[in-house]
Amino acid sequence: MKDKILNILKKQKDQWVSGEDICRRLNVSRTAVWKHIRTLKQQGYEIETQPRRGYRLITVPDLLYPQEIAEGLKTKFIGKKIIHRYRVDSTNDAAKELARNGAKEGTLVITEQQTSGKGRLGRRWHSAYGKDILMSVILRPEINPAEIPQVSMMSAVAAARAVEHTCQLEPGIKWPNDLLVEGRKLSGILVEMGAEIDRVKYVVLGIGINVNSTSSDWPDDIKHKTTSIHQVKGTAVSRLKLLQNLLEELEQLYEIWQKQGFQPILELWRQLCVSKNCPARVDTIRKSYTGWIDGVNENGELLLRLDDGKIIPFSSGDVSLRL
Amino acid sequence: MKDKILNILKKQKDQWVSGEDICRRLNVSRTAVWKHIRTLKQQGYEIETQPRRGYRLITVPDLLYPQEIAEGLKTKFIGKKIIHRYRVDSTNDAAKELARNGAKEGTLVITEQQTSGKGRLGRRWHSAYGKDILMSVILRPEINPAEIPQVSMMSAVAAARAVEHTCQLEPGIKWPNDLLVEGRKLSGILVEMGAEIDRVKYVVLGIGINVNSTSSDWPDDIKHKTTSIHQVKGTAVSRLKLLQNLLEELEQLYEIWQKQGFQPILELWRQLCVSKNCPARVDTIRKSYTGWIDGVNENGELLLRLDDGKIIPFSSGDVSLRL
Repeated sequence: MKDKILNILKKQKDQWVSGEDICRRLNVSRTAVWKHIRTLKQQGYEIETQPRRGYRLITVPDLLYPQEIAEGLKTKFIGKKIIHRYRVDSTNDAAKELARNGAKEGTLVITEQQTSGKGRLGRRWHSAYGKDILMSVILRPEINPAEIPQVSMMSAVAAARAVEHTCQLEPGIKWPNDLLVEGRKLSGILVEMGAEIDRVKYVVLGIGINVNSTSSDWPDDIKHKTTSIHQVKGTAVSRLKLLQNLLEELEQLYEIWQKQGFQPILELWRQLCVSKNCPARVDTIRKSYTGWIDGVNENGELLLRLDDGKIIPFSSGDVSLRL
Repeated sequence: MKDKILNILKKQKDQWVSGEDICRRLNVSRTAVWKHIRTLKQQGYEIETQPRRGYRLITVPDLLYPQEIAEGLKTKFIGKKIIHRYRVDSTNDAAKELARNGAKEGTLVITEQQTSGKGRLGRRWHSAYGKDILMSVILRPEINPAEIPQVSMMSAVAAARAVEHTCQLEPGIKWPNDLLVEGRKLSGILVEMGAEIDRVKYVVLGIGINVNSTSSDWPDDIKHKTTSIHQVKGTAVSRLKLLQNLLEELEQLYEIWQKQGFQPILELWRQLCVSKNCPARVDTIRKSYTGWIDGVNENGELLLRLDDGKIIPFSSGDVSLRL
């Protein structure tokens, strides 16, 4: 009901809408309308109220509310259920908890700020309030654990395409799933799962994109290797549009993956990969290797060409480009 | 303290030990001794009490109490921390919860009965109270998710060896990790994990062994394909001895795996495998295949030889032997 009232006000933004009119159109009481308007105001919607004229929507807050994301979102299942938190420790942790308790595929957890955001390999993911995209989606693909890197690479492609479509930037992908612009990190992806040996029970796909945060928002030790859309374009952009497009791209690629397998995804990934032939170091749990990136094989494993010409595949590891 | 009192009584089982003696040896008050004795009685220890003679241990309950498991257990980390529940929904679920909250490697969850025990591929695992081994161990190997089947195969070898050593039975392994005796299932293993794409954060290794349950304890629909140690030997055996040996075997194999890799484990697994050359059907998430089992490759994947001679590897799937 709150969303319906908001939609009426939005359609006549900056114009007066009488309370009576809303009551009639939605068949609710004046008191109910008043209560929902109060909630919207608490959420940051600036709504003017005058006894005889009614209500007038002045501004919509720049927050990623479910009602804002849902409006005009062209997906079938991703983001159909949205949990928004002003602050949360980690959207991945919140989404894992939901997934364990049976949340549906496509459930989206989104927040304005993570208080202990996580990156790959146990790293921290820092965020400023209300500036970036910090989200996790629950997926339930019927795959086995060994196939999980495919989800991660698919997500990187979706994020790169969404940034390209909505922000006219062309980020490149660094294996397996970082987005880089001008050699700096724009986006990171953390895929987690609950699984048995031969079936994945849930995947939580965490995506962080630096949208409107800028240099002063980032910790000193990562400033030199971090960027954001604002930073590159010199101006703030709509997080909402980017997020909606990201969810749409994700769903589209997910469906291609489900129907046609990993090859079409891998082709897209290869086209976006920036690190081909770069000198690089790969740190695995057990050992470090240096060489040149030779691309990826058909399973999405990174191929590193060593000095002696030997090519080693990596299914996991941390890649540093030796630029 | 309770365990220390119990140990004194055990060393002089069936003999009187004075309260005064216990107080002096452990440097505690009479009241403290009396309280611990009361707890032990509540746990099912039959302890006789007489005003001037003191205490006398008559029987130890046939339950898998931490103090009983710990006594004489020769492991360094597996089972050093034990959580015993009379009943629990699923030891794997309990262990996963503990693992997520940081429980140490080797933590053991054990129960007398699971109220909603789980098997592989979403199946139920039925259990009668106080008769079988129903346990989960938390492991934290530094591996990536694709290597997780190795844990499962290692566990099957450990379980087979423990049954052989303590019960003089020689179970065979059906890929990937069922133990069979006379073609019937004696034990099942459910490995679950929490993971990111390139690191496993925890593994919960659930092992169920039918020890002293018998035909009348099993649901009708699985009676014909289930067995237990009691059923085969015609007599009840000590769950405790078997469990202790299982934990020891597990730790030993885990250390071999960590130090020498998967090959030595795979060799042991191959020696115990019963289904080589058996006609079989493999049901995967996507498709079913029939053929003959050709063994396993070096990654532990099942090799199925089809009618046309083609050999397909399976990293996951449900195998039915066509006996």
